[in-house]
Amino acid sequence: MPAKRTEIAELGEFGLIERLTCQFPIRNASTVLGAGDDAAVIDAGERYLLLSSDMLLEGVNFDLVYFPLKHLGYKAVVVGINDIYAMNGTPEQLTVCIGVSAKFSVEDLEELYSGIRSACEDYRIDLVGGDTTASVNGLAISVSVAGSVDKDKIAYRSGARVNDIVCITGDLGAAYMGLHLLEREKRAFAGNDSPQPQFEGYEYLLRRQLKPTAASDTVASLRSAGIVPTSMIDLSDGLASDMLQICKNSGCGVRLYLERIPIARETHKMAEELHADPVVAALNGGDDNELLFTVPVTQQAKIAGIGGIDIIGHITPASTGTRLVTPDGSELSLTAPGFREQ
Amino acid sequence: MPAKRTEIAELGEFGLIERLTCQFPIRNASTVLGAGDDAAVIDAGERYLLLSSDMLLEGVNFDLVYFPLKHLGYKAVVVGINDIYAMNGTPEQLTVCIGVSAKFSVEDLEELYSGIRSACEDYRIDLVGGDTTASVNGLAISVSVAGSVDKDKIAYRSGARVNDIVCITGDLGAAYMGLHLLEREKRAFAGNDSPQPQFEGYEYLLRRQLKPTAASDTVASLRSAGIVPTSMIDLSDGLASDMLQICKNSGCGVRLYLERIPIARETHKMAEELHADPVVAALNGGDDNELLFTVPVTQQAKIAGIGGIDIIGHITPASTGTRLVTPDGSELSLTAPGFREQ
Repeated sequence: MPAKRTEIAELGEFGLIERLTCQFPIRNASTVLGAGDDAAVIDAGERYLLLSSDMLLEGVNFDLVYFPLKHLGYKAVVVGINDIYAMNGTPEQLTVCIGVSAKFSVEDLEELYSGIRSACEDYRIDLVGGDTTASVNGLAISVSVAGSVDKDKIAYRSGARVNDIVCITGDLGAAYMGLHLLEREKRAFAGNDSPQPQFEGYEYLLRRQLKPTAASDTVASLRSAGIVPTSMIDLSDGLASDMLQICKNSGCGVRLYLERIPIARETHKMAEELHADPVVAALNGGDDNELLFTVPVTQQAKIAGIGGIDIIGHITPASTGTRLVTPDGSELSLTAPGFREQ
Repeated sequence: MPAKRTEIAELGEFGLIERLTCQFPIRNASTVLGAGDDAAVIDAGERYLLLSSDMLLEGVNFDLVYFPLKHLGYKAVVVGINDIYAMNGTPEQLTVCIGVSAKFSVEDLEELYSGIRSACEDYRIDLVGGDTTASVNGLAISVSVAGSVDKDKIAYRSGARVNDIVCITGDLGAAYMGLHLLEREKRAFAGNDSPQPQFEGYEYLLRRQLKPTAASDTVASLRSAGIVPTSMIDLSDGLASDMLQICKNSGCGVRLYLERIPIARETHKMAEELHADPVVAALNGGDDNELLFTVPVTQQAKIAGIGGIDIIGHITPASTGTRLVTPDGSELSLTAPGFREQ
């Protein structure tokens, strides 16, 4: 055991990954891009192959008290394949590793896999392998997704250019509100063997948390419209953090307009109930499974024609910083918990 | 929760995987082979791309009482890349997902990653991504490896033909004996704060368990000799189980000669100490990280010329079964715990 002890919390997730992986050189000519984007990029000859891996652990990334196993399986696939869509690619293959403790029955795992199967059907993905092992405690899931993209169509986080417009799909903060709702009902019914939680009217928030949609339609629409985003990222950590990732990787700044950030009516209503700020949920909530991307300003009309996409700002020189403009015209600095510039 | 409850132990690992994955069709033309071999096979145009994933959980797959984190990182890579070598391929990219509880410090994880880095150096692998998440209990590691192989050089489990010779690299049972030794010393020193276990003379067994070697040299030697195995498998579950996998997938039988199974002197010695049967360790011990493969009998002289490879039997028609021939000429049926014919 080394003498010095630094707590992981001191570094945060981004800092930890950087510290652990900074000394890994790239040795193979086929490795076009290693860590640092939504997926790794491998040169497969005619096309690029994309590869991404995620891990979900019970008690941290999901709570089986309110997360049905079938939905969990579905969501694990959606989260995984969105990393491929975020490179403007098409996910094609999936491996799933699971670690399961003795509390799970074969029927439980069949529920999990029926959700995985359902997502594979919806998005045309092939389950091509994986691993099962026992676990001491709870359920561990690891999903790796392979996909491909034409070399001239790939979208990195690093390609945003000054004057590009910033686009976002769907609406933000709803999944986060759904999670809060589920946590509230869990607390209210703790110790009650047959709880009857009140979910009526909250269906949208719950669906955003429990059965998210992957970004396949957006990628297909952009393709049909002949648009290749200059940069793109999967919105998993919240708009603020993910926008900062694009700015950092592209060496640019941004101006986002607060009133243009799409927030659903249901999210506003729930925020009111919880005495929470819906904008904070949108900026920092995470779990949205939407795409954030930039395109040249010349494509603005085309983007407007697609539908389901909002233009929320534009890219600026790095020297002007990352700014959030409020409805009254004042400017805030766009920051995110855990995000580190270097 | 479904009404019926079937315990996972009733099915075993192979049965469980089959039950969970049997209803997954292949939808993408790029998927050449899904689950059921050492790695999935993806058509990448000129070459095949290979993809494999494994999960290792603390308390089940490793015990940190005697497994140093650096060695664990190294072994996780070796176990992962051997799946690619077992397809006669070259591993090139690696993703690593880790789940870590608060008992681990940043320095602990640096130890783990120094082992991963060391293996990446030794085998020329690029770390290209992954995920870190918190865990409630202990350490979870998931490794995915991508590699490639010329289309005419790939070795599946399914290509063994009658009269092919059965070849094995290295020696068997040593890693299993190393594990028993570590478990024995752990029990002997339980509760002792500064144990001084006696490992002198056992270095080979410990190395086989704690710092295994991947099969890169074998694959390179076969390539130089112009040999493409008709079938190949990574020896992870023990010779018996893995041989049965080749027979099942190739639709053939086998005759293995017990006295030809390579067992190291140190393994024999340790087996004597433990009053255990070294042959059982070789057949069912697992963790050997060697390759089991078949080649046409016409290649026998070439195989003998490579060195480090033993010919332990030959492939027979399925009708003659899977047989183990003892030194006195009697025949046993080759079986493996957990292995299911259908």
